[in-house]
Amino acid sequence: MIDPPSLVDQYCHGVLRTELGLGTFEAQLARTEGPPAPGTTLFDTQTGFAVRRWCPPLLGLEPHCPPARYLARRRELGVVEAGRRLLRGSGITTYLVDTGPPGDLTGPAELAAAGDAEAHEIVPLEQLAEQVADTSGTVESFLANLDESVHGAAAHAVAFASVAGLRHGLALAPEPPGPREVRGAAGRWLAARRAGDELSDPVLLRHLLWSAVASARPLQLHAGLGAPGARVDRADPVLLTDFVRATAGLRADLVLLHGYPYHRHAAHLAGVFPHVYTDAGAALVRTGARAATVLAEILELAPFGKILFSTGAQGLPELHVVGARLFREALDRVLGTWVAEGAWAAADAGRVGAMIASGNAGRVYGLERTGGGPGPR
Amino acid sequence: MIDPPSLVDQYCHGVLRTELGLGTFEAQLARTEGPPAPGTTLFDTQTGFAVRRWCPPLLGLEPHCPPARYLARRRELGVVEAGRRLLRGSGITTYLVDTGPPGDLTGPAELAAAGDAEAHEIVPLEQLAEQVADTSGTVESFLANLDESVHGAAAHAVAFASVAGLRHGLALAPEPPGPREVRGAAGRWLAARRAGDELSDPVLLRHLLWSAVASARPLQLHAGLGAPGARVDRADPVLLTDFVRATAGLRADLVLLHGYPYHRHAAHLAGVFPHVYTDAGAALVRTGARAATVLAEILELAPFGKILFSTGAQGLPELHVVGARLFREALDRVLGTWVAEGAWAAADAGRVGAMIASGNAGRVYGLERTGGGPGPR
Amino acid sequence: MIDPPSLVDQYCHGVLRTELGLGTFEAQLARTEGPPAPGTTLFDTQTGFAVRRWCPPLLGLEPHCPPARYLARRRELGVVEAGRRLLRGSGITTYLVDTGPPGDLTGPAELAAAGDAEAHEIVPLEQLAEQVADTSGTVESFLANLDESVHGAAAHAVAFASVAGLRHGLALAPEPPGPREVRGAAGRWLAARRAGDELSDPVLLRHLLWSAVASARPLQLHAGLGAPGARVDRADPVLLTDFVRATAGLRADLVLLHGYPYHRHAAHLAGVFPHVYTDAGAALVRTGARAATVLAEILELAPFGKILFSTGAQGLPELHVVGARLFREALDRVLGTWVAEGAWAAADAGRVGAMIASGNAGRVYGLERTGGGPGPR
Repeated sequence: MIDPPSLVDQYCHGVLRTELGLGTFEAQLARTEGPPAPGTTLFDTQTGFAVRRWCPPLLGLEPHCPPARYLARRRELGVVEAGRRLLRGSGITTYLVDTGPPGDLTGPAELAAAGDAEAHEIVPLEQLAEQVADTSGTVESFLANLDESVHGAAAHAVAFASVAGLRHGLALAPEPPGPREVRGAAGRWLAARRAGDELSDPVLLRHLLWSAVASARPLQLHAGLGAPGARVDRADPVLLTDFVRATAGLRADLVLLHGYPYHRHAAHLAGVFPHVYTDAGAALVRTGARAATVLAEILELAPFGKILFSTGAQGLPELHVVGARLFREALDRVLGTWVAEGAWAAADAGRVGAMIASGNAGRVYGLERTGGGPGPR
Repeated sequence: MIDPPSLVDQYCHGVLRTELGLGTFEAQLARTEGPPAPGTTLFDTQTGFAVRRWCPPLLGLEPHCPPARYLARRRELGVVEAGRRLLRGSGITTYLVDTGPPGDLTGPAELAAAGDAEAHEIVPLEQLAEQVADTSGTVESFLANLDESVHGAAAHAVAFASVAGLRHGLALAPEPPGPREVRGAAGRWLAARRAGDELSDPVLLRHLLWSAVASARPLQLHAGLGAPGARVDRADPVLLTDFVRATAGLRADLVLLHGYPYHRHAAHLAGVFPHVYTDAGAALVRTGARAATVLAEILELAPFGKILFSTGAQGLPELHVVGARLFREALDRVLGTWVAEGAWAAADAGRVGAMIASGNAGRVYGLERTGGGPGPR
Repeated sequence: MIDPPSLVDQYCHGVLRTELGLGTFEAQLARTEGPPAPGTTLFDTQTGFAVRRWCPPLLGLEPHCPPARYLARRRELGVVEAGRRLLRGSGITTYLVDTGPPGDLTGPAELAAAGDAEAHEIVPLEQLAEQVADTSGTVESFLANLDESVHGAAAHAVAFASVAGLRHGLALAPEPPGPREVRGAAGRWLAARRAGDELSDPVLLRHLLWSAVASARPLQLHAGLGAPGARVDRADPVLLTDFVRATAGLRADLVLLHGYPYHRHAAHLAGVFPHVYTDAGAALVRTGARAATVLAEILELAPFGKILFSTGAQGLPELHVVGARLFREALDRVLGTWVAEGAWAAADAGRVGAMIASGNAGRVYGLERTGGGPGPR
């Protein structure tokens, strides 16, 4: 039995504070371009089935009970109490929380309190730049304030996260843009911008990536699924190869988030480049009953010291639960099978399980207590 | 035991009417560029082994008997009687039949009679245009007749099918071409054309796709394998993303056929876009003993209401048999395992099995009787 | 039990002649861009775990013993004796050996003697050209000497191997370059060249490929993984499609090496084109406990007469052992499962196992004795 004592969720968001009905809950189960087709429901997905498997028992119901019954029970307990029970049932001992939009989600401190866990902040690079743009009058002040903000964030956050791959694609020129190029791009963007506009200019995205790298904090890069209507091949992590090579030998680690359906490519980069790590997380939440296979595919090429667990959860504490439970079960099934077949030694399997569950994250993000006591499970 | 009572083959062709020898039968087992290499045979493929597993018992022989013995028995029965036994043994209750070339294949009515099943017509867009070109004297009459033909076909066919991805690749400009652009392309194509020439002009291919979309009938798009000598990456369904987005909110559903080796990409599009569906079919016939895994890969991202069974069979009734049997067995194995592991509830598995086998097709194509009685198995 | 009596390793290198310490041994376990990240080791990879599983028993130790203990025992025996025990324990009966760099590796004769096996030479095309360049004074003499060298090599070698896909990518213009184009490229390359410079000019790479094809010897092409810091998608074998079509009907077979993570694409090409073969080898060494799944993925589309075993081993005899043992075990598990499920007949499985293990290689490379006696296992 591979049963890591602690679980660091290296990338997630907070949870919604509002009560949810059947439709508003369903809409959080996947990121889509429009409502479900007539005659279909997002509950009939791997994520929906996984929620129905793992979450009802934490609220005192039978596994696989109908969605309407689950939602009724959830409202009966109230969003706060349901959230507490779910998060504490997840087994997660530390959350690294992306504090970017969407707006009304709990922050790290609230998530920590609700889940009786540690929590740390991940600063979303592009949103940081948008906030700075909202309060800067000129190009010069924007760039100076941005520099200061990145520097300030590096002092208190455990990592930066970039959605450049989702907004523009990962085929960005690998080298840092020159100062004049950055000023020109910033000028054009600020002039055309209305409040709330998203940053997707490739020069500014590259400027942000290199600012983060210069801070020497780990930089998380979204890859693969994530921007529902965009071409997923534009977020294939192989497109990052030249950027990865350009950042080799600097002090910042790069962590490839998600990756699916290109998770084998992400694992390859983690195997080749010392400063690259890969994620075993959000892909499991999306693929549910197939989580063991997807995890095993990541374990093909990625060195075991380069894989980090996450849930990628956002909005629903059910997604934190599902991410953590699917991961633990997949880990036990995959590594346990290899031990049973004689391919791996049992002691190695336990050690590797603990590395992926928390040890690697502890080392990469400089966390304390990752070897700590057993989670609340 | 997941055992759907009815089976709608959402995409297939008819069968050959001529007696076949060992070599002519073998040549139907795969689409290749040239005869098998010296010392090899197409019977030594997953498709060949699957035919030898499932078909001999339907003709009174042992599974896995040698090909020569099987072919001798097939000729002894005659092509008509062998075809009847095979099709009736497939368990398929409704066939949707692409009536395009190659020439001497049975049509929907003949297939229905031989298989004691329902059958409906799928109109192949490009061949429709080629037929119209054969009988139209001018660009104006060609375009007017084409418009009328598409409109007429929409009144009696259950769907349109396009091989644009196999002839040109799926990287087509997403918007409909303008009238002048279409007239120009049609003029050039008609002027250079000899009877029998295939349509592969990208402007005319796009014109056909948009004509089909305007008819509001479901539009089936070939993706992945299919054009043996062409670059398979040019038929990656991610290349359709912009076209898919451009057609969102119109009344036509898009059904991605085949998809392998990019079936995870097709499943992703079916998950993101309400009007996109994906196929679980021809890929199983090609991958044989691996069918359960390929089906499971499709079931990762595709919502269960968006997956439709097909065989993709063409020429040999054996391929209809193999497609249906591999699908039923894969469905039972994959969903049955998930039930045994506790990941899925048994009732959900039965329901999802019936949806993929026939219910989703019934809804998308507006078929009656899809919840009908048990097949002849 | 699928247990092929002989095993032809259709692509490997020789082994190092020097004693290795823990660090120098570890560095041979993977091809990376730099040393392992702090806190990680290349022993914690699938390859590392596979070496610890299979090799210690051949040197009289327990499976999975710690690396330091294994290395101590290896040094105690000495590199020659350890190499003999390992190679003889691999079960490989014939080695086809790429004699290219890196320098101080044993050649075919030494490998044959150490392993009590047959061995034949594979001539690395690009290194052949570099050696010719080192000794040719003018463009004319370079091209004439190169032509003569290729011709001479074809007389004694069993195959040519090209790393064009690793150095430049496989997106090469498919047709042979014209004589003037070749002379121009050769002139520029020779003028700029310093001794030791690698050949990566695309015109000269194409010239080499077509020279090899003209010789009618089998041509092995590296695809997929192999150049650690390069973009792996540039070595996707689908990029070879047009070259493959251009070489169809000539007398030379093309063998796609490695292929992972695009091994399904390589299998597809082997299924479509009579003169294309695919490899089941190096990918297994890299993916260790996942070898059975990777082999099964290759077996989806590749006809069974078109798949050839290799280890892709280089430097360490441990990699020859791991490649052979993982292959045998994966073959037994995959084919054995299909027999147990009734999908394949047992006799077919045994026959296909022997084809992949040695029969196909015997036919493609014109080897004798491939049906020979049982290996030393």
